[in-house]
Amino acid sequence: MSLQPSPEDRFTFGLWTVGWQARDPFGDATRPPVDPVETVHRLAELGAYGVTFHDDDLLAVGSDRDEQVRRFRTALDETGLAVPMVTTNLFTHPVFKDGGFTSNDRSVRRYALRKVMRNLDLAAELGASTYVFWGGREGSETDAAKDVRSALDRYREGLDTLAEYVLDRGYGLRFALEPKPNEPRGDILLPTIGHALAFISTLEHADMVGVNPEVGHEQMAGLNFVHGISQALWQGKLFHIDLNGQHGPKYDQDLVFGHGDLLSAFFLVDLLENGGPGGSPAYDGPRHFDYKPLRTEDMTGVWSSAADNMRTYLLLKERARAFRADPEVQQALVDSRVGELATPTLGDGETFADLLADPSAFEDFDADAVGARGLGFGRLDQLAVEHALGAR
Amino acid sequence: MSLQPSPEDRFTFGLWTVGWQARDPFGDATRPPVDPVETVHRLAELGAYGVTFHDDDLLAVGSDRDEQVRRFRTALDETGLAVPMVTTNLFTHPVFKDGGFTSNDRSVRRYALRKVMRNLDLAAELGASTYVFWGGREGSETDAAKDVRSALDRYREGLDTLAEYVLDRGYGLRFALEPKPNEPRGDILLPTIGHALAFISTLEHADMVGVNPEVGHEQMAGLNFVHGISQALWQGKLFHIDLNGQHGPKYDQDLVFGHGDLLSAFFLVDLLENGGPGGSPAYDGPRHFDYKPLRTEDMTGVWSSAADNMRTYLLLKERARAFRADPEVQQALVDSRVGELATPTLGDGETFADLLADPSAFEDFDADAVGARGLGFGRLDQLAVEHALGAR
Amino acid sequence: MSLQPSPEDRFTFGLWTVGWQARDPFGDATRPPVDPVETVHRLAELGAYGVTFHDDDLLAVGSDRDEQVRRFRTALDETGLAVPMVTTNLFTHPVFKDGGFTSNDRSVRRYALRKVMRNLDLAAELGASTYVFWGGREGSETDAAKDVRSALDRYREGLDTLAEYVLDRGYGLRFALEPKPNEPRGDILLPTIGHALAFISTLEHADMVGVNPEVGHEQMAGLNFVHGISQALWQGKLFHIDLNGQHGPKYDQDLVFGHGDLLSAFFLVDLLENGGPGGSPAYDGPRHFDYKPLRTEDMTGVWSSAADNMRTYLLLKERARAFRADPEVQQALVDSRVGELATPTLGDGETFADLLADPSAFEDFDADAVGARGLGFGRLDQLAVEHALGAR
Amino acid sequence: MSLQPSPEDRFTFGLWTVGWQARDPFGDATRPPVDPVETVHRLAELGAYGVTFHDDDLLAVGSDRDEQVRRFRTALDETGLAVPMVTTNLFTHPVFKDGGFTSNDRSVRRYALRKVMRNLDLAAELGASTYVFWGGREGSETDAAKDVRSALDRYREGLDTLAEYVLDRGYGLRFALEPKPNEPRGDILLPTIGHALAFISTLEHADMVGVNPEVGHEQMAGLNFVHGISQALWQGKLFHIDLNGQHGPKYDQDLVFGHGDLLSAFFLVDLLENGGPGGSPAYDGPRHFDYKPLRTEDMTGVWSSAADNMRTYLLLKERARAFRADPEVQQALVDSRVGELATPTLGDGETFADLLADPSAFEDFDADAVGARGLGFGRLDQLAVEHALGAR
Repeated sequence: MSLQPSPEDRFTFGLWTVGWQARDPFGDATRPPVDPVETVHRLAELGAYGVTFHDDDLLAVGSDRDEQVRRFRTALDETGLAVPMVTTNLFTHPVFKDGGFTSNDRSVRRYALRKVMRNLDLAAELGASTYVFWGGREGSETDAAKDVRSALDRYREGLDTLAEYVLDRGYGLRFALEPKPNEPRGDILLPTIGHALAFISTLEHADMVGVNPEVGHEQMAGLNFVHGISQALWQGKLFHIDLNGQHGPKYDQDLVFGHGDLLSAFFLVDLLENGGPGGSPAYDGPRHFDYKPLRTEDMTGVWSSAADNMRTYLLLKERARAFRADPEVQQALVDSRVGELATPTLGDGETFADLLADPSAFEDFDADAVGARGLGFGRLDQLAVEHALGAR
Repeated sequence: MSLQPSPEDRFTFGLWTVGWQARDPFGDATRPPVDPVETVHRLAELGAYGVTFHDDDLLAVGSDRDEQVRRFRTALDETGLAVPMVTTNLFTHPVFKDGGFTSNDRSVRRYALRKVMRNLDLAAELGASTYVFWGGREGSETDAAKDVRSALDRYREGLDTLAEYVLDRGYGLRFALEPKPNEPRGDILLPTIGHALAFISTLEHADMVGVNPEVGHEQMAGLNFVHGISQALWQGKLFHIDLNGQHGPKYDQDLVFGHGDLLSAFFLVDLLENGGPGGSPAYDGPRHFDYKPLRTEDMTGVWSSAADNMRTYLLLKERARAFRADPEVQQALVDSRVGELATPTLGDGETFADLLADPSAFEDFDADAVGARGLGFGRLDQLAVEHALGAR
Repeated sequence: MSLQPSPEDRFTFGLWTVGWQARDPFGDATRPPVDPVETVHRLAELGAYGVTFHDDDLLAVGSDRDEQVRRFRTALDETGLAVPMVTTNLFTHPVFKDGGFTSNDRSVRRYALRKVMRNLDLAAELGASTYVFWGGREGSETDAAKDVRSALDRYREGLDTLAEYVLDRGYGLRFALEPKPNEPRGDILLPTIGHALAFISTLEHADMVGVNPEVGHEQMAGLNFVHGISQALWQGKLFHIDLNGQHGPKYDQDLVFGHGDLLSAFFLVDLLENGGPGGSPAYDGPRHFDYKPLRTEDMTGVWSSAADNMRTYLLLKERARAFRADPEVQQALVDSRVGELATPTLGDGETFADLLADPSAFEDFDADAVGARGLGFGRLDQLAVEHALGAR
Repeated sequence: MSLQPSPEDRFTFGLWTVGWQARDPFGDATRPPVDPVETVHRLAELGAYGVTFHDDDLLAVGSDRDEQVRRFRTALDETGLAVPMVTTNLFTHPVFKDGGFTSNDRSVRRYALRKVMRNLDLAAELGASTYVFWGGREGSETDAAKDVRSALDRYREGLDTLAEYVLDRGYGLRFALEPKPNEPRGDILLPTIGHALAFISTLEHADMVGVNPEVGHEQMAGLNFVHGISQALWQGKLFHIDLNGQHGPKYDQDLVFGHGDLLSAFFLVDLLENGGPGGSPAYDGPRHFDYKPLRTEDMTGVWSSAADNMRTYLLLKERARAFRADPEVQQALVDSRVGELATPTLGDGETFADLLADPSAFEDFDADAVGARGLGFGRLDQLAVEHALGAR
């Protein structure tokens, strides 16, 4: 198996990742701006499949919009890079300091909708199939200042309106909401995959809205990312994914994929690549890296870090393939009855009345004996660790 | 306003709270068992409205079930205490070490369903209206040992089956799922309010299933409890609530209500009591305390701590009432445009096409000027802090 | 007791607090720069005692240093504001991206020492008594890139060298190290009060070095700030303190004092103001606010938030005074044997041999009976909560 | 390199690890008690070097103390297993519910000292060289109930007294304090490696007291364990170490070593094994596993999990050796100037005055140019990840 990425691997990067100038809350930029055209060429050389962007990443304030888009399209044409996803920046400008769709100020909400619509046109023009909404400023620092239920009304109104716009225009875009618990707001609305999925179930066009979970965002809340992705898949809502690394609850680190909780990264790749029926991929969308090259790096380090994301993913894919193929693992899965969970609890055609009438289920069930049986989960965990370490 | 609790305040307690013998992972019990009959009488004297229980709290192993239930009913009759909620223990016995509804072992799942059904009968018999499901053992320590999507299938199957049972029997019970991120499992399924709400949207009888969020459980994930409760209310799913205290991400502390994040407790009471239309209560169910008296206390301290939960709630209710009544707060809310968020972003009958045609929304919108406007959120936060401190 | 701050209250503010332009990792500045001269006048009007600064706060790059200092001194003279503390910015400029005293690059370390020395001269000139070191960039994102033991060698070398400089010049300055667990680095050296105190014990001039703990920094690690301050006081090392608010482990929020864990703020003020012998203050240095006005505020909100810090402190001081004066609290403290902990475990002149010979200590000690005694801690906690709420 | 553990690897286990019956806060025991004699034989067969214990692990209440010790010694003699460390249980019995050395109740403190002295005799008799103190109950749930400064006085008094006892008896034992931030107390005194090191610096016999850090305990506070161990080594205080696994801030998981933050485990083993001069081990004491076999396992799984700890350590040792031997890593370390940090900031004999007189250090230093240089840390991190994955 090759560790050299190719477009078939569906790796994509945001312009803002390699383009991050490394300005942080306590420090000035350490790197120059990067021309999006250069990014397109570099990513293509590295083997990426596509590139993504916020409107403001591509179209600097005061820039000649048409000229910028033309140069970008030319680069795409020259390299064959796709633009599978586009998103809007509703967080950098001071006008969004209390949010876009849920700002207390109605005029800001109207402006935000218009800013998104404008960029939906560009997304469609560039052939994107997914449009991401990260509501990083939709939230509050004090519960006194935000009526959360009204905010959710407005959030829903905004997305319903934009869905209608997309449907009316025939853009064929699907929406993906990106949850995050906090930063830059003290608490952000729709803080986890779960909250976003729940919210989506209330939308008028719920079928065209899914999630775009990010590794680090869930881990900032101490949540198991693999569990979250599993629930999103289970609900048919994993429309896009943001891969990176994080060291638990602290500021948003956006490290290179795998450069955080490595074992969780292994299980994630295993789920994405082998979690479908018969071991097929459970997810076929872009593997999108939303990371920040370390502030200590120069541009050489930036491009090298982009490659590292893909290489680590491919390495973990190899490890996960070997894990699944290992007969000892297969036997251990049987011993731990992992597959038995796919068998319904009730038998075929069995009703609750039948269950009530089955003494083996309760009256004659030897709970103590069954409770004493070992489940062999430790063995499975050790096998996974050893496969992650490339030791089997 | 009286600080003396009365049944009208709808305060309820689990038998397992005051009855906790204070056995913890590193220590033996420091207190004797408490007879449920005594608990009923004590809680009634303290001014509580009701009492709740797990099957195993009431019916010790090997006990004479009928006699236990009879004694308990007599105590309820003597005191007038209600039993608004009942739940099942699917976590203490070793047989549930890998979960109840989602155990890899199918026989355990069948046993769990039967154990719940048996207790649903008792719940109905005692007049409960809510049945809580805390799936504390539904989870895993290693991603290798649990097929989360199958687990969610089985979770759904279990709840769908039990809902049918309740409907068939005409019990009039509603279900409330209680989320928790971890402990006693490394990661628990449906870890937050959001995940539970999302899961509920997939159930066959989704209308009869809501959530029973617990203060400390959300705070263990660093999430804003008031935001979570707001979303549950917004989705019409706040069927029950567990009040206690917690100091952020660490083990489940189950402190007395308010003895953790006091400011969040203030905002929570404000939401529950004043968050409805025209300042009415936003929630009319039991105020259920699910806490553990400190392990350092004897039984005198236990009963006193029960009273402390109610007294703190009533104190915060008084503070929240004064906060809402303060003209300075009312003006500050206007200045911060908090109410403006209830105004739809689109005008009455306005479509996206109308919005597109409105140059004041975008082309003529002065984002810099609006971005420079102060929002006055700090003022609101300070007013809340001062009201919480009883200083206004 | 007055809630109007006065210089006797010893409240101080950093120039960078009210002067923060609200640029964050995801957003541009929402406020204009503030002239330090204006800040001095405003803070004096609000009742502050003093002002503090990093070299770069006062002396913008390319500025006329002498003129800036002259204007600042004039403002100080006009207002009577003191400059009790000064510090160095070793984190904003890209040259410090891998730290100042512990950069892998030796030339950066030499530059950092010189930058500090230059500012020590100014600190002395302005009459400061404390010089703070926040090593926000001394750390790493990957363990591979930093030899921590060499880093601690260089950290010590740097502080030893600067201590010699101060002693040689006769500046009368004491050093205070400010711990922080992370942000902007993935992991920062000397992450907590404890690590800093331990490190200090190894310094050549350990007697002139203490700590400057910050509320939010310890709470970012989930640690009890009051416990940390207690240990710093116990080791005679609380040289300075940074007051603000934080909601647990997440990014550094720098909220207004009390606008986070309010109950902990109550206990902190109680410790500082009443924790000394006979209820005297345990700490007599500046009450220094190191906070950031919310990004949503304009300059009116900024100045108002500065006042809020002081007002909340004074309110909590009043609550803590009433708590200590309450006879019920005094009795509860006796019941809980809180004062008994001041009695040595061994009697006067008693040796371990005497203890071994005392059968009442072990052979005749009834551990079960003593273990069953209630300690009344819940009662104390409730009394504290009620006093914090101004309800007694 | 062999993955078969042998006594030369110095692996040790606590009796309470494999002997844990899997009783947790929400569940009953799932496993039977294990005879310490069996544990000794099993561990010896698995290749361990030694075994450790709390007094209560070996000597059940009401047991025939002499007979128990005799049987245990016989097992040690038969197997050659060493007892390098012993500790005291000052947390399980209700009498210790407010701590041992720092209980508010003086009689408890006296009892605790006696209980330790009794077990110090046994430790010496069995040839232990280290005596661990885990003060799991030394702490509080409310700041109102504990005078932390008095508590630290008593903690110091207790350790000073016990140190005198050991010196008087000529036992040759060293003390190692084990920090933990919380659980079972809300906040535990000496919560981190740093706090413990700082406290030790105040002891009368500080030279004979060091630390026994545990992987999971530091990670429960979100701290970098490798940084903490580095500081402990730097201060000459790493007397013992507890290895296990943890998934960030939550309850104390005590997973198998490596079954948590795998990348951190890699860097830890690299530090311990290769961090000394010339790549020698930086620590030569026991590699002590303080973990809990999963509650889902039976005794087969228990013994297998014990082996997994050692195997994972040896695998990581192999990976770390290859990492250090890789010429690309060596070049990357040079490129990142990692070794340059060992060079003092001042030249040989250089004083601060010389530094002040060196214009190349400041006046002529081109901060912008140096700030623009890339440091190559990302490259190092990727090399480490790839070596951890066994991919180079």
